[in-house]
Amino acid sequence: MTDTATLSRSAEAFPGLRTRDGSRWHYLDSAATAQKPQDVIDATVRAMGADYATVHRGVYSRSADMTLAFEAARRNVAALIGGQENELVFTRGATEAINLVAQSWGLANLEPGDRILLSQLEHHSNIVPWQLIRERTGLVIDVCPLTADGRIDLDAAERMLTPAHKLVAFAHVSNVLGSVLDVNRAVALAHGVGAKILIDGCQAVARLPVDVAAMGCDFYALSAHKLYGPTGIGALWARSELLDAMPPWQGGGSMIDRVTFERTTWAPAPQRFEAGTPAIVEAIGFAAAADYVRKAGLAAIHAHEAALVVKARAELGRINAVRLFGPEESAGIVSFALEGVHPHDLGTILDEENVAIRAGHHCAQPLMDHLGVPATARASFGIYSDESDIAALVRGIERTLRIFA
Amino acid sequence: MTDTATLSRSAEAFPGLRTRDGSRWHYLDSAATAQKPQDVIDATVRAMGADYATVHRGVYSRSADMTLAFEAARRNVAALIGGQENELVFTRGATEAINLVAQSWGLANLEPGDRILLSQLEHHSNIVPWQLIRERTGLVIDVCPLTADGRIDLDAAERMLTPAHKLVAFAHVSNVLGSVLDVNRAVALAHGVGAKILIDGCQAVARLPVDVAAMGCDFYALSAHKLYGPTGIGALWARSELLDAMPPWQGGGSMIDRVTFERTTWAPAPQRFEAGTPAIVEAIGFAAAADYVRKAGLAAIHAHEAALVVKARAELGRINAVRLFGPEESAGIVSFALEGVHPHDLGTILDEENVAIRAGHHCAQPLMDHLGVPATARASFGIYSDESDIAALVRGIERTLRIFA
Repeated sequence: MTDTATLSRSAEAFPGLRTRDGSRWHYLDSAATAQKPQDVIDATVRAMGADYATVHRGVYSRSADMTLAFEAARRNVAALIGGQENELVFTRGATEAINLVAQSWGLANLEPGDRILLSQLEHHSNIVPWQLIRERTGLVIDVCPLTADGRIDLDAAERMLTPAHKLVAFAHVSNVLGSVLDVNRAVALAHGVGAKILIDGCQAVARLPVDVAAMGCDFYALSAHKLYGPTGIGALWARSELLDAMPPWQGGGSMIDRVTFERTTWAPAPQRFEAGTPAIVEAIGFAAAADYVRKAGLAAIHAHEAALVVKARAELGRINAVRLFGPEESAGIVSFALEGVHPHDLGTILDEENVAIRAGHHCAQPLMDHLGVPATARASFGIYSDESDIAALVRGIERTLRIFA
Repeated sequence: MTDTATLSRSAEAFPGLRTRDGSRWHYLDSAATAQKPQDVIDATVRAMGADYATVHRGVYSRSADMTLAFEAARRNVAALIGGQENELVFTRGATEAINLVAQSWGLANLEPGDRILLSQLEHHSNIVPWQLIRERTGLVIDVCPLTADGRIDLDAAERMLTPAHKLVAFAHVSNVLGSVLDVNRAVALAHGVGAKILIDGCQAVARLPVDVAAMGCDFYALSAHKLYGPTGIGALWARSELLDAMPPWQGGGSMIDRVTFERTTWAPAPQRFEAGTPAIVEAIGFAAAADYVRKAGLAAIHAHEAALVVKARAELGRINAVRLFGPEESAGIVSFALEGVHPHDLGTILDEENVAIRAGHHCAQPLMDHLGVPATARASFGIYSDESDIAALVRGIERTLRIFA
């Protein structure tokens, strides 16, 4: 297993972690998007240059090679989360993955009076897609409350779920609080009433070992850019019998079997859901990112980030003006407020100290409503984070308090 | 204006145009996807590394800088086709751009009995999205025939169009035949019956000067990867009053104004159509590609490729076994058949000579049905193509004919 010291040294592999003058950038916004290791950049450069060709169609060898690499990337990314290649659809990102489930599976399977269960801490990407199909299907959205420390309250979910529920859609890791869902229990609860369960794995895949087969979930959404990979690509994993039965959503090249103006027949999944020239270069980069975290070890990454969370909460907790949100046990994410200082002002002052945090509603306005604040400050860690980042954050907060005193 | 000799020398700027042993690769598949100039690769590397940050949300300076660069990229790409930044939505590609129009504008505006007019030469990406909404809307799809030499027959379109037609959707340049649409006349015909008109500009943007304002069209779809830019991104240009009125299609972060579980309100266009973290790096690369073709000059590129088409058709026409498809005047694309040789076999033998062509139905099966062939061989040119590519193609065809003799 990779140890914490090794992980911390990995910052050298990330060209994005240097400031213009070459010093260390204290990047605490990995939950928004992760920096890219040189390996991923190098894979991108090769795929855009010496190896570049289209996939699935070319009769020349470089296109055949690129097709093999593209399908190997699918296998690689699927394997990272314990899935099979025929279960993995490349999407534009996790958001599109959830929209795909809503607009294909949802429109085909949800009827007036059917209910779905979301939670109060969901990211907008796991709320709005369901609202968009609410009008068309007549579905009812129920909202699972949170525990006092900011986890999805599965006892409440157990009381709320009924046979009218056709889907449960929960975040694996909260993007604001870092709280980790007990996926196995959530799956058992959903399946207990005959509902399917979708897990928004956006934050989890970069922070925890994930095994969709062991968890037994039905859909799992992820993005590459939060996993140290390229922007512009993500994936939907779905159990093959569900994916096989889902109607197409977007039409175009590569997703068809035979096209006439009268009638068109579809390719099997996952191709049926990948209309048009795919994000070829990005898929290669996605696989390089999967290789990167696999080599470091997701258990080691999780331990590394959990330790940083404990340290950060302890350090922040010593500052009277700090109000911490979320549970003690968090997967690499800490949200807080600073009494008398708007999070945006804090973020701006921290920026002067080369510390980057996120300030805002984090695309989770219903959670902000629950916390009773319009915004939080959020520090989120990655594989490259270390205690120097926490020390810089604390120094910056102390300076901010002096300015606002 | 850049002359042809300068354009031909530009091959040196494309690392993808070298074979493994460093010799020239005769890449004649630019209509499938174009190779990338070093400028685009360099812009990608900077955006993934030293400049990398998320957009629209960060309170720190690097994120603010990246947001400016991302929005400048939108302005840049819009300007390339004569549009404004508030009219340009970044999509996954041209295919998604057309699906967006179908599923947002189409579902909101088409009713049972409404008709749309496509043409016999459309790419599947401009057929299947309309078929997918045909069942939901009750729309009727009419098919405009082609002239004998393979152009969309606008005289026929004029006879076919009625006030029941709400949309005309035509390719600007055929991806199989290279035939160029008289967009101004098509626009006048569509608007004459009160229909909107969508132009699939996938092949055109890399091959012709395009000015959506001068053409007067309503929607224009394009992809970056055919314009010497990154995979994983494209754009929909739409007249602002149309875009402003279109309902959201995909839900998620960045496309909302305010989210509660009861009711969500939307951001204005174009953000309303860009749910989730955008393809940040790809947008930067898209702009670098736009800069590249702008510097070369699209009129010069068009003249360069048109001259290569004339040369290629003359050379191929001298070979008895060759049957040429499409009009004499073509924007950089030549389709043909070789008597007694399947296009796939030709493609495979050409590959041994470092010549890459495309063989197949080119995602245009209805056009294949019209031509009476299951597949064609297609040679397509780019900014970097020159007469040595044509000579290599002809040598390869002659060798193939000797093998099959």
